[in-house]
Amino acid sequence: MSGRLTLSLDAMGGDHAPDIVLKGVQIARTRHPDVRFLLHGDEAVLGPMLARDRTLADACEIRHADGVVGNDEKPSQALRRGRDSSLWKAIQAVKDGEAAGMVSAGNTGAFMAMAKLSLRTLPGIDRPAMAALMPTQRGDLVMLDLGANAECDTDNLVQFAIMGEVFARTVLGLEQPNIGLLNIGTEDQKGTETLRQTSAILRDSTLPIRFHGFVEGDDIGKGTVDVVVTDGFTGNVALKAIEGTSKLYSSFMRRAFESSIISRIGYLMVRTAVNKVRARVDPRRYNGAMFLGLNGIAVKSHGGTDAVGFANAVCVAVDLGTHGFNETIKGEFMKVQRASGLDPETLERAANG
Amino acid sequence: MSGRLTLSLDAMGGDHAPDIVLKGVQIARTRHPDVRFLLHGDEAVLGPMLARDRTLADACEIRHADGVVGNDEKPSQALRRGRDSSLWKAIQAVKDGEAAGMVSAGNTGAFMAMAKLSLRTLPGIDRPAMAALMPTQRGDLVMLDLGANAECDTDNLVQFAIMGEVFARTVLGLEQPNIGLLNIGTEDQKGTETLRQTSAILRDSTLPIRFHGFVEGDDIGKGTVDVVVTDGFTGNVALKAIEGTSKLYSSFMRRAFESSIISRIGYLMVRTAVNKVRARVDPRRYNGAMFLGLNGIAVKSHGGTDAVGFANAVCVAVDLGTHGFNETIKGEFMKVQRASGLDPETLERAANG
Repeated sequence: MSGRLTLSLDAMGGDHAPDIVLKGVQIARTRHPDVRFLLHGDEAVLGPMLARDRTLADACEIRHADGVVGNDEKPSQALRRGRDSSLWKAIQAVKDGEAAGMVSAGNTGAFMAMAKLSLRTLPGIDRPAMAALMPTQRGDLVMLDLGANAECDTDNLVQFAIMGEVFARTVLGLEQPNIGLLNIGTEDQKGTETLRQTSAILRDSTLPIRFHGFVEGDDIGKGTVDVVVTDGFTGNVALKAIEGTSKLYSSFMRRAFESSIISRIGYLMVRTAVNKVRARVDPRRYNGAMFLGLNGIAVKSHGGTDAVGFANAVCVAVDLGTHGFNETIKGEFMKVQRASGLDPETLERAANG
Repeated sequence: MSGRLTLSLDAMGGDHAPDIVLKGVQIARTRHPDVRFLLHGDEAVLGPMLARDRTLADACEIRHADGVVGNDEKPSQALRRGRDSSLWKAIQAVKDGEAAGMVSAGNTGAFMAMAKLSLRTLPGIDRPAMAALMPTQRGDLVMLDLGANAECDTDNLVQFAIMGEVFARTVLGLEQPNIGLLNIGTEDQKGTETLRQTSAILRDSTLPIRFHGFVEGDDIGKGTVDVVVTDGFTGNVALKAIEGTSKLYSSFMRRAFESSIISRIGYLMVRTAVNKVRARVDPRRYNGAMFLGLNGIAVKSHGGTDAVGFANAVCVAVDLGTHGFNETIKGEFMKVQRASGLDPETLERAANG
């Protein structure tokens, strides 16, 4: 991997694959012309597509995979029967050191299960979490878990808090990010027993993190904290509810600008500024959630995204790979663990053994 | 109650009470000049406020209450010690038939516990749910539960689906509203065991309702279904995440319009249309969630709302009271139960006994 960065892509995963994968690579290459891509998927389909575009073909190498993991396959099914799939093979390329990271828009549950089995979790991490940036009134924040673990216990949430903290320091460059735990009220007695216990641990522990306390759904848009920690069910619903609201607002604005001749003329004058806002809240801009806590860079693209969104997910993986992010997060995570008095080896055995 | 409708208000509940309550009543009276209000709260505070406004004083009657339920009080505490509170007394006025309905911006958990104890649930309903309208690309939809029950089992969710269906028929006037169950994917195996079981029951049952299946967070804004059913934790987080996103988008747009001289001039021409959009998605417009499933109209206002938001919650209660909504929903609910072959009396004993 010396010199050029190589990324491994699941060319067949997602609702509109492989079309958006190849178009996404084209877009991503305008930002990162030097990156090489391993395209995992059906050679009979991918070959002719690549043949039509010489510059794209030069940057890509097809790695044939017979199978595709379907969107409705259970993780356990995918693990048993999916060893010839484009998703599994894309992950293997990272494990084998052929690629600095990988991206898939495929089945989230299968992706998570395969990535965990193949790449294994970092010492002290039971389950990886999906993390991504979200727009707020005060810049971006990190939210996790966005859907990898529908149900989480106290240990999981504490681990997510630590990983989110390190992610915010590394990716957002914050010195002391503050961490909020998503709840339905900010008072101590609010929410589930799991949340109250997690809050008590984060508040009283010797972990070197800044715990803000509980935050509510509207604190995401406000940017009250730098890291929002939640279980994968709540995080996924919140993420998609936010995306849906952005689209709703955009569609209302579009109709408003078209509602009269005066507003059509006015729109010509505000268009540049309005388009900046649209770009700022565009869910595609935030596409590409990283599985935190694995020995390797694995980025999940939204399954229904288009080429622009997939290109953003590719750029997330490129950024993380270029900056050796996973080595940093691993080192930082070990430091946090040592500071907390936990023994990484014991934790590793518990997590992986 | 013949002739004029009487509403009972918790004048001391919420972050900015009693100020926004009285101002809210003033605003609500411009829409409903004939409604009478029973203001429950501290006479020494409310008396002088009313004395300053003769027309408001004519429409209101102060009912002294010594206590206030604090925002951080646990429901069990409030039940034990809150019998002299403005919240409890406001509910009692509905129970005693003095008022057609009541509104409070106070502590949600205490409100729920007191309303349930005092007004009791309808036959067949274990726990009431908070329901409200939400804006979508296809008109409004009904979402429940918005925070009354942090954790829900299959029975609760099935009951919410039935109540939401009747609410959508009665309030939105839909003939055959379709019902969606909020999840993190639409495939059968997605989400928690509770959700999968609930889906199976709603799909296979003889209940005369139209079950769409699972929906995701972005289906709220899309308006994929007419009723979104979820537990109170997820519903509350989604509701507030949506509110936060509306505010975020509005603030970005405001900054965009101010970003250059050209866009400022353009704004003057699109302002009317843009303000309509702002009003359309304004969380205050959707303020006022009804506790469904009780023998009485009880409306919860957002605790941090202003006078405009509180006025909207008052108008929700007025509308429900004027149209005898609770009698309708009770009758409709019994019909649904009979059609499903359930015995209301047995269910009532199970729920209340």
